[in-house]
Amino acid sequence: MTIDFKQDILAPVAHDFAAMDTFINEGITSKVALVMAVSKHVVEAGGKRMRPIMCLLAAKACGADDLERHRKLAAIIEMLHTATLVHDDVVDESNLRRGRPTANATWNNQTAVLVGDFLISRAFDLLVDLDSKVLLKDFSTGTCEIAEGEVLQLQAQHQPDTTEETYLSIIHGKTSRLFELATEGAAILSGTEQYREPLRLFAGHFGNAFQIIDDILDYTSDADTLGKNIGDDLMEGKPTLPLIAAMKNTSGTDFDLVRKSIATGGTEHLSDVIRIVNASGALDYCRQRATEETEAAIAAVNQLPDSEYRQALINLAKLALHRIQ
Amino acid sequence: MTIDFKQDILAPVAHDFAAMDTFINEGITSKVALVMAVSKHVVEAGGKRMRPIMCLLAAKACGADDLERHRKLAAIIEMLHTATLVHDDVVDESNLRRGRPTANATWNNQTAVLVGDFLISRAFDLLVDLDSKVLLKDFSTGTCEIAEGEVLQLQAQHQPDTTEETYLSIIHGKTSRLFELATEGAAILSGTEQYREPLRLFAGHFGNAFQIIDDILDYTSDADTLGKNIGDDLMEGKPTLPLIAAMKNTSGTDFDLVRKSIATGGTEHLSDVIRIVNASGALDYCRQRATEETEAAIAAVNQLPDSEYRQALINLAKLALHRIQ
Repeated sequence: MTIDFKQDILAPVAHDFAAMDTFINEGITSKVALVMAVSKHVVEAGGKRMRPIMCLLAAKACGADDLERHRKLAAIIEMLHTATLVHDDVVDESNLRRGRPTANATWNNQTAVLVGDFLISRAFDLLVDLDSKVLLKDFSTGTCEIAEGEVLQLQAQHQPDTTEETYLSIIHGKTSRLFELATEGAAILSGTEQYREPLRLFAGHFGNAFQIIDDILDYTSDADTLGKNIGDDLMEGKPTLPLIAAMKNTSGTDFDLVRKSIATGGTEHLSDVIRIVNASGALDYCRQRATEETEAAIAAVNQLPDSEYRQALINLAKLALHRIQ
Repeated sequence: MTIDFKQDILAPVAHDFAAMDTFINEGITSKVALVMAVSKHVVEAGGKRMRPIMCLLAAKACGADDLERHRKLAAIIEMLHTATLVHDDVVDESNLRRGRPTANATWNNQTAVLVGDFLISRAFDLLVDLDSKVLLKDFSTGTCEIAEGEVLQLQAQHQPDTTEETYLSIIHGKTSRLFELATEGAAILSGTEQYREPLRLFAGHFGNAFQIIDDILDYTSDADTLGKNIGDDLMEGKPTLPLIAAMKNTSGTDFDLVRKSIATGGTEHLSDVIRIVNASGALDYCRQRATEETEAAIAAVNQLPDSEYRQALINLAKLALHRIQ
């Protein structure tokens, strides 16, 4: 079966999704023209809005009827996501994201750092209005963990001894935690505490799979598929799972070359490293891990009652996995 | 009378201040070694801790007896302040702050941006634990306004037409708002809502005076006094009050030179600009405005009952003004 994003994932919450999009724009208000211009630019440059869609689907899967507060939560999550992207682009000195000029490229680093700070503060400001202590605590702790995951990634850069365990901590912080907040938050606002943990597990495993797939594509895709170039991670000396797995299964000169490439960064040995991650079975291992994480995600969400919304969440997990199939 | 910082300002809350300092260190906890190292570095590089001291003094001036929660609030304020300094140093590409290497210089921009994000999130996380909806809303709105003030400052850079009104908006956001949060927050936690507005006015006027004085010193001090070099603001094309006032009182080539210097930045004409801000009476005007703001601050805090704590707040305002006398 071919899964269609609009038909099989978005459709059940299409109405709420449109209202949520409006709220993102309304939620970003500032008397400062430059704050408005940059915020609009970066929020409009958004991608598929996977996190807010997941939040809305989770809410409906919990049995929520009126999604007014969930739509606000979904918008808040997208604002937090956007803020991290804006700061990531400064950190990575990126000029393009999804084919559009980044905030740091269009304006400058100063503006991008400060507007990112504004978006974080504004997200908290809107969150306070939702008036749930449990939700606030989950988000304030969660955003700490997201920042920690990003710093852990920096700390691991150029470190060939990074373990698979550390890699999992990194991707949990930098990717999975925000997906978790999206679905946990939906359960909290719905007053269905019993679904909070299954939904957190779904989102956490989904996020892990999503990031592992991204890291595979960095050694197999072309620019059109991913919006980034093959070898970007190697360039930066990031010890992602394809390289960690390759080092487990190789020895001698191949092993040394992967280690050295992580330590130095750069793409001088890219074609050799691609050969090694393929020949060593590392990519097969990564695909297997992504499949396992997807299966764990589906098993977790299946603890919720059957519904078209639960099915849409499952479809989303399956569609993500299709990127490497 | 000569005011001594330790004797006449800090002494009445010295015990709570020491406990607060311990809490800052305890409050910064992370499993990620790099987060800990950078956070400790930047928090230890702190200055006089004026904002937390003001918070503690305000609490006592409100009649609060047990300052346990106020100490936490004071620590949170210092963390927020530190986060903005870390991001400012990235924004300004500064290598030194108070004679110590900055986070971006010691590590790199990436680390500084992300650890700043961590400190903002951690501050909110600790704030949620204080369990006051009113406090949370004040801080979430306030941090938006702080970020907006900083962006407004960027927007005004190289703009010679910046008005005194816009200048006041900038310094309210980038400087005064956090002082306001420190004292307002103290009133909120003390359950003395009647003192919230007088304390907000005190801190707002104090902050305005403090920043105007800083901006005067940028044209009159030497590096030893301020930890920054004379002419830094002109270098960056910042339309601060000394220049705005100078343009009001000059015409012809002097007027044109100030305009041009703001528009282009740089210190090519620094000695001429210094001559003009002196000869035009602009510095006198700035000193008068700083004095007026200080007087307004003192008048506001005098609405609270007389106490050694209220006197210490007044002493702090007077001491700040002494920098230009």
